[in-house]
Amino acid sequence: MTTGQSVNSAYGRLESRFRRLSQLSHARAMLQWDHATMMPSGGAQARADALSELSLISHEILTASETAELLEAAQDEKDHLDDWQRANLFEARRDYQSARALPADLVERLSQASMESEMAWRTHRAANDFAAMRPYLENVLALVKEEAAAKAEAFNLSPYDALINDYEPGGSAAKIGALFDELTGFLPDLLGQVIERQAARPQPILPKGPFPIDRQKALQLHVLDMMGFDLSRGRLDESHHPFSGGVPDDIRMTTRFDVDNLMPGIMATIHETGHSLYELGLPKVWRHQPVGRARSMAMHESQSLIMEMQAGRSDQILGVISQLLRTSFGDDPAFQPDNVRTLYRVVKRSLIRVNADEVSYPLHVILRFRLERAMFAGDLTIRDLPGAWSEGMRQLVGISPVDDKDGCLQDIHWPSATFGYFPTYTMGALAAAQLFAAARTQVPQMMDDLGRGDFSSLLGWLRINVHQLGRLLPMDEMLKRATGSGLGVTVFRQHLETRYLGSSM
Amino acid sequence: MTTGQSVNSAYGRLESRFRRLSQLSHARAMLQWDHATMMPSGGAQARADALSELSLISHEILTASETAELLEAAQDEKDHLDDWQRANLFEARRDYQSARALPADLVERLSQASMESEMAWRTHRAANDFAAMRPYLENVLALVKEEAAAKAEAFNLSPYDALINDYEPGGSAAKIGALFDELTGFLPDLLGQVIERQAARPQPILPKGPFPIDRQKALQLHVLDMMGFDLSRGRLDESHHPFSGGVPDDIRMTTRFDVDNLMPGIMATIHETGHSLYELGLPKVWRHQPVGRARSMAMHESQSLIMEMQAGRSDQILGVISQLLRTSFGDDPAFQPDNVRTLYRVVKRSLIRVNADEVSYPLHVILRFRLERAMFAGDLTIRDLPGAWSEGMRQLVGISPVDDKDGCLQDIHWPSATFGYFPTYTMGALAAAQLFAAARTQVPQMMDDLGRGDFSSLLGWLRINVHQLGRLLPMDEMLKRATGSGLGVTVFRQHLETRYLGSSM
Repeated sequence: MTTGQSVNSAYGRLESRFRRLSQLSHARAMLQWDHATMMPSGGAQARADALSELSLISHEILTASETAELLEAAQDEKDHLDDWQRANLFEARRDYQSARALPADLVERLSQASMESEMAWRTHRAANDFAAMRPYLENVLALVKEEAAAKAEAFNLSPYDALINDYEPGGSAAKIGALFDELTGFLPDLLGQVIERQAARPQPILPKGPFPIDRQKALQLHVLDMMGFDLSRGRLDESHHPFSGGVPDDIRMTTRFDVDNLMPGIMATIHETGHSLYELGLPKVWRHQPVGRARSMAMHESQSLIMEMQAGRSDQILGVISQLLRTSFGDDPAFQPDNVRTLYRVVKRSLIRVNADEVSYPLHVILRFRLERAMFAGDLTIRDLPGAWSEGMRQLVGISPVDDKDGCLQDIHWPSATFGYFPTYTMGALAAAQLFAAARTQVPQMMDDLGRGDFSSLLGWLRINVHQLGRLLPMDEMLKRATGSGLGVTVFRQHLETRYLGSSM
Repeated sequence: MTTGQSVNSAYGRLESRFRRLSQLSHARAMLQWDHATMMPSGGAQARADALSELSLISHEILTASETAELLEAAQDEKDHLDDWQRANLFEARRDYQSARALPADLVERLSQASMESEMAWRTHRAANDFAAMRPYLENVLALVKEEAAAKAEAFNLSPYDALINDYEPGGSAAKIGALFDELTGFLPDLLGQVIERQAARPQPILPKGPFPIDRQKALQLHVLDMMGFDLSRGRLDESHHPFSGGVPDDIRMTTRFDVDNLMPGIMATIHETGHSLYELGLPKVWRHQPVGRARSMAMHESQSLIMEMQAGRSDQILGVISQLLRTSFGDDPAFQPDNVRTLYRVVKRSLIRVNADEVSYPLHVILRFRLERAMFAGDLTIRDLPGAWSEGMRQLVGISPVDDKDGCLQDIHWPSATFGYFPTYTMGALAAAQLFAAARTQVPQMMDDLGRGDFSSLLGWLRINVHQLGRLLPMDEMLKRATGSGLGVTVFRQHLETRYLGSSM
């Protein structure tokens, strides 16, 4: 099947080539999901070998001279292509250039170094041993700098921007820096105000477990269903770190269950479901082509956060969750609407990003962005990282860690050679606020629908304005069409002020 | 990693090529397992597309002219190769020739036709509608005849033999026919005698359920462990039809659980574990090469049947199972050793092959072999199949079906274009009897060990005499070295006579 061009045109043959790459991705996605959820420990080596060979096969297909020739020839057919096909050609060329940018031996060395470093991190973070971790981080950073330099040359960008572009096409440290400066202009103060205000009110009641896992899972599946996730097109399993994987029509989400603490798991699942609904909503006819993929990491995060933070922590949905909790686990005072609202909106200064609330989370991200930028500018070495971390945390969040394990060793990103990714979390939060506000204005009954646990009007709006567009447009253009403006801070700030300092609190 | 030759030799490069094919097989094996056990229904189309593309990629790699050149050049290096490498080269060439034998459009048509026919079979078998199934079978048979003709030419064999060789290298209808004639010389009589004898004794007590699935599964996992299956190197799940899949070090077995009937599930798992232990025991250094695969389908079946029939239904293991049943489900009279023995050794004339006992099973297989042979000789059309089936069943098993669903529509093999496979079930049963008898003679303590639920001496013997040999030798040669004779009927006959007509019954 092609999307309209003759299979014999260069463009048509290019689509076949990318279709093959997509099928290889299908295999990798499923093997990775299986690895995290089902695989017996003894299978680790065989799986690593298989995954690495599949990656190599994909890399060879993508970087083959035939791909270059087809890209070239398809370019000449451009007048016969429609907007989608042109956008697809653009994305295909980007994939090709990105893969070609790195010499094979660097890919190999990076993969080896990050695997070792990630393994070392599991040990040394637990042991709070920065000194032992340092050489791994130094090695990884040196290689990532090589990677960045190679990509910078290929794409005519600065090295750090070249990394950012892997996750956020069109993103740059300058644009992100400007947004983040705006955020730091008010967020630390706002954080202080919210904390003061919350301290003055009665503390929420904590639900008392145990809460049987099977009933937690039943509740979460109910939430999935309510959100419009079709359970014949995906699964929900358990893994150490929740994630969304698989392929459209066969989404593999994972969550975690804590028998004593059922609240975070529900929100983790709502978050992952946001990611999954995006994947399920991508344009079906473009499913196996580059233009049919999710727009970017920031856009992906916007789809999880619009569910977890914007809708999920609204009065409406927290009311629905309160009702579900009472139905599943009895009429406990902890499950009353007021208490559920208070529980899910606690704001505090905390050390660990992944547990942070939506007010302080951007400050954690900004710290990492600043440190990455400094590392790539040559202004910060790994040796000086713990000090810079503590100082940055003190300035931004208002507390700083005693231990490196709760400081610069807390995230898996750097040990696994992922630099330039962190900003997308906060860009996603900004975009989520904008999209939700726009949907709310454009679909008047949306909040009432959510109050009944009906996500269809929100989801319908997202389908049209985000999901079905794939990569047809740049992210900023998508946001402008959907919300009237490009990515900015204003709506996010209004959202936080209304929710955490508004009269209803 | 290579197995000893320079990576730059033609032979070394050939190994790399087959290593890549093996990694693609890993992906396919896991995707197939997932399809049968985990995949949500909505993922079917995406999975079918991905699997078909992976097959196509493998086919292209295998049939590429570069493969032919490497095979040719490696042949010239033969003096520098050891026995294993030569056997590997032989198997690699066989794989290549087999893949090259079929024109791409025939592969495509066969795959399409068998997919449609298999789907039609699920409906029409349930509806007992042979007339509706007939055109599908005719279409499939016509295409399989084309396939057989193409392979016959490539391998200089008769068409039916060419199909047999896909599953049983070196096998032929003449050799199989001779063995099967010997079997038909005594088996129908023996069946009658056993049935008569069993009719004269008290009927066994049927265990009364319900038997909770989780406890059935715990018992089966205990049996796996007892058999020497390392649970860190595989999983046991549920599927509609039990199978063994996955890869060595990450075996994926499935079984079924019936809350009211726990006995068949235990034996199904013992059978699949026999297959799995073979895979786990294949020579590790040859894991990704053709010579490192299981010898043949008959040898594979011998490994499941040596566990299910030879060891599994011995007094020793049935005693152990009786004990496990009593421990898991209480001291029920149905679980007493005598009753368990009687239950697991019931022999009867039955219509359905997969439920048949070890005495009558070969007769079911012989019927299918005769019909296949007649179809390939042009002596039998699909139209005449139901009649020929009934007549054959009457002659061989002594009963015949009222409905086609219990007759010629019962097996998935023909609808899915699998011809030439059936004989391997009975060749496996013969080999299992020979191997078990030889092991018993060569390892004097083996039966005592089995009586304590200790499979290690049996497994150790199989490791050395079967598993670790991969495809180094032809099957008949392996049997000769291990047991003193090639595949024959004598030991199997002795086994049946001793177990079912001996004094201990």
